Amino acid sequence: MNLSVKPAVAALLGSLLLSTAAAATPVQGTGVAWGIVEGLTTEIGPRPAGSPADHRARDWGEAKLKALGFSNVKVEEFKTLAWQRGPESAKLTAPYEQPLAITALGFSVPTPKDGLKAPLVYFPTLAALEAAPEGSLKGKVAFIDHAMRATQDGSGYGPYGNVRRQGPSIASSKGAAGVVIRSAGTDSHRNPHTGVTIFAKDVKPIPAGAVSNPDADLIARTAARGQPLAIDLTLLGKPFPNAPSGNVIADLPGRDPSLPIILVGCHLDSWDLGTGAVDDASGCAIVTAAALAAQQGGQTLRTIRVLWSGNEEMGLSGGGGAAYAKMHGNEPHAIAMESDFGADRVWQVSFSVAPENKPLADKVKAALWPMGIVPHADAANGGSDVEPIIAAQSLMVIDLGQDGTRYFDLHHTPDDTLDKVDPAALQQNVDAWAAVLKVIANEPGVIAKAPKKAE
Amino acid sequence: MNLSVKPAVAALLGSLLLSTAAAATPVQGTGVAWGIVEGLTTEIGPRPAGSPADHRARDWGEAKLKALGFSNVKVEEFKTLAWQRGPESAKLTAPYEQPLAITALGFSVPTPKDGLKAPLVYFPTLAALEAAPEGSLKGKVAFIDHAMRATQDGSGYGPYGNVRRQGPSIASSKGAAGVVIRSAGTDSHRNPHTGVTIFAKDVKPIPAGAVSNPDADLIARTAARGQPLAIDLTLLGKPFPNAPSGNVIADLPGRDPSLPIILVGCHLDSWDLGTGAVDDASGCAIVTAAALAAQQGGQTLRTIRVLWSGNEEMGLSGGGGAAYAKMHGNEPHAIAMESDFGADRVWQVSFSVAPENKPLADKVKAALWPMGIVPHADAANGGSDVEPIIAAQSLMVIDLGQDGTRYFDLHHTPDDTLDKVDPAALQQNVDAWAAVLKVIANEPGVIAKAPKKAE
Repeated sequence: MNLSVKPAVAALLGSLLLSTAAAATPVQGTGVAWGIVEGLTTEIGPRPAGSPADHRARDWGEAKLKALGFSNVKVEEFKTLAWQRGPESAKLTAPYEQPLAITALGFSVPTPKDGLKAPLVYFPTLAALEAAPEGSLKGKVAFIDHAMRATQDGSGYGPYGNVRRQGPSIASSKGAAGVVIRSAGTDSHRNPHTGVTIFAKDVKPIPAGAVSNPDADLIARTAARGQPLAIDLTLLGKPFPNAPSGNVIADLPGRDPSLPIILVGCHLDSWDLGTGAVDDASGCAIVTAAALAAQQGGQTLRTIRVLWSGNEEMGLSGGGGAAYAKMHGNEPHAIAMESDFGADRVWQVSFSVAPENKPLADKVKAALWPMGIVPHADAANGGSDVEPIIAAQSLMVIDLGQDGTRYFDLHHTPDDTLDKVDPAALQQNVDAWAAVLKVIANEPGVIAKAPKKAE
Repeated sequence: MNLSVKPAVAALLGSLLLSTAAAATPVQGTGVAWGIVEGLTTEIGPRPAGSPADHRARDWGEAKLKALGFSNVKVEEFKTLAWQRGPESAKLTAPYEQPLAITALGFSVPTPKDGLKAPLVYFPTLAALEAAPEGSLKGKVAFIDHAMRATQDGSGYGPYGNVRRQGPSIASSKGAAGVVIRSAGTDSHRNPHTGVTIFAKDVKPIPAGAVSNPDADLIARTAARGQPLAIDLTLLGKPFPNAPSGNVIADLPGRDPSLPIILVGCHLDSWDLGTGAVDDASGCAIVTAAALAAQQGGQTLRTIRVLWSGNEEMGLSGGGGAAYAKMHGNEPHAIAMESDFGADRVWQVSFSVAPENKPLADKVKAALWPMGIVPHADAANGGSDVEPIIAAQSLMVIDLGQDGTRYFDLHHTPDDTLDKVDPAALQQNVDAWAAVLKVIANEPGVIAKAPKKAE
């Protein structure tokens, strides 16, 4: 439909409404957490590791944490292997010419500048690609389909995400000149999902991209017609060695500075396509606001440290978590936690805890029961920003599991923007985290080294 | 979140699922209507007027209508004023550097190749822009915000669509060097909505684009901070005079070929960003499948003609509807109808009918009551593809009103793809249209010239 609006009615409504209509009033939140998500997404926006915006984000974070009253606010810079996007486009050229909405995967290597023109071979699953004979993809581009669906705990990201993580490496091992995957995402918009791919050491890196779900549907329907497919693929992104990145850390000192500290992490960097609202400005907002909220009613016994980590997204070979563990491995930590799964509500809690600290875990569970947050049997693992220090010091870990139903609609896409953050759900996260921090940061007993398994 | 999947679980699930997981199985429909939408979107895709795909779509339509058993299948070519997209990008450059998801509006003129760099002036509404002093926007780019919300009948497109239709012309009249609007759309994805703008005759055309709703939110939040804004705007699309386009027409001959015919229209062209699934492959699918369904149980008394119109989207100065009226104005028509509002279910019916044909309108209403389709008091107008022949012959018109709640989420965006079509709703449309056609194409009485107003 273009102009088929009833003209008289449109004109009348137009003149009536023009004089009174307000501008759009997007949902707005209040408070510390909202201020961090709103500020980072508005004043910084996309902040991939190594970019000028990544640097501006650290400055922004340092100023923000000082303004919020944190102590020992520090930017700790490090060099890291990152990846930098270039121009990118693709179209099916046979049997039908169709433009494709595509984005390169992190650690893709570039195609020729004027595009890689090659037959496209359809594989319905990663297993089907694995079954392809050696050398059978020489000079061809592999397309890997799959069937990721939304789940509340986000666990589909494990197996279906392997199409992104391992698919390109497997395609290359079969001789492919390039690879395109269906995005590891659960939405139906023309916004493909980026994310890093992992080329095995003995495999030649090849250009690797992801198309949106509607484009993958189109390729699947076209392949089903049985005629040969061909693609013209341009992906000019490339690895960015020794990229400058950094962490921002800040403390809320406890009454007894000699006690091992509580570390709460998130990541400050984001993918370049969106503004990193749910991944992971929200995580930084949640842990920071909760650390402050835990002081309401009195300073906690233990110091709470927030870690806004750099280069989580492309930090395969050492991001902010590794840099933190290296710089702070000599300081005693008691417990580590991380928030990096969006801003939807917390619904479950899990632990990695020594048997002698089961009573502490029970106190945490008791604090969360009134909020409807249920225990989960899986072992807590923390996440990339805190895993290196957890591993180095065998730390107790608590995971607050968020509702992930919508998360992979947005994850690593241009759609990761502020309007996707529900202020009420964001605040529920802050409340849940504050409830946990009040318990653990006031624990006077010994917090023992924990086995990396469920309680 | 990047790699913070519990590794052991991911590996286990990965190996389990890799061996059994199927590829994605998108919703699939069956039948004539689904075949047309699926075929056009898969085998042709985007088909803007004047493009090679527009030509391929006519060939496709001719072959399809012949295969479906239509008679007198003809491609009727015409030349038209169209518009052709070029490279496009934009970023805020002050107070914060942020990329913007933008698309040019149809009939925008090009910026300089290396971009128009200018202050950006925020107007919360079209009324605020209209109130700006003459000459006050010299050398500046205007941003026009608004607050379009979804409505079931789509009527918000009248007033809020005026921001797109009239906003650029008003901005130019105030001296603006360029204009950017919030998309006339109701979604929250980074997919801006294109569509034509209308420069008044005495106004200089300027570059004109639309940003997505999340980007417009960003501009609004930034403007609210009170610092001067600036933009770097590249929109290289330009008008395309004498573009080759054309209509496809086909008949299902009636038992009495001397009686004035029933014309059912839709448009074959689409915007270039999506594949034109809801706008308007679905319309062509609905009218065509319904015309065939109306013959089940016996050939209708009157001939039913389908018109798959060319250049509806950019046909301000004469598209397929005008070309049809010119070529077929000497043939007697009785009633015209059009489907061009997506594929969601029909919920209301309206008429433009002569008083003596009120009994015929009542028969149509009676045929629709069992489907829960209610009469609406507004006069039917048909829509752009059939309006010229309606005006030329003062035809009776029947509008079947569809649920438009989702329509402006998708309209004129990259997201207008097959997965947005609900096969059950598409079939409900076919059933409703067939019920109407069975009544009107079997009407033996005189169908009088109708006033252009409600019954």
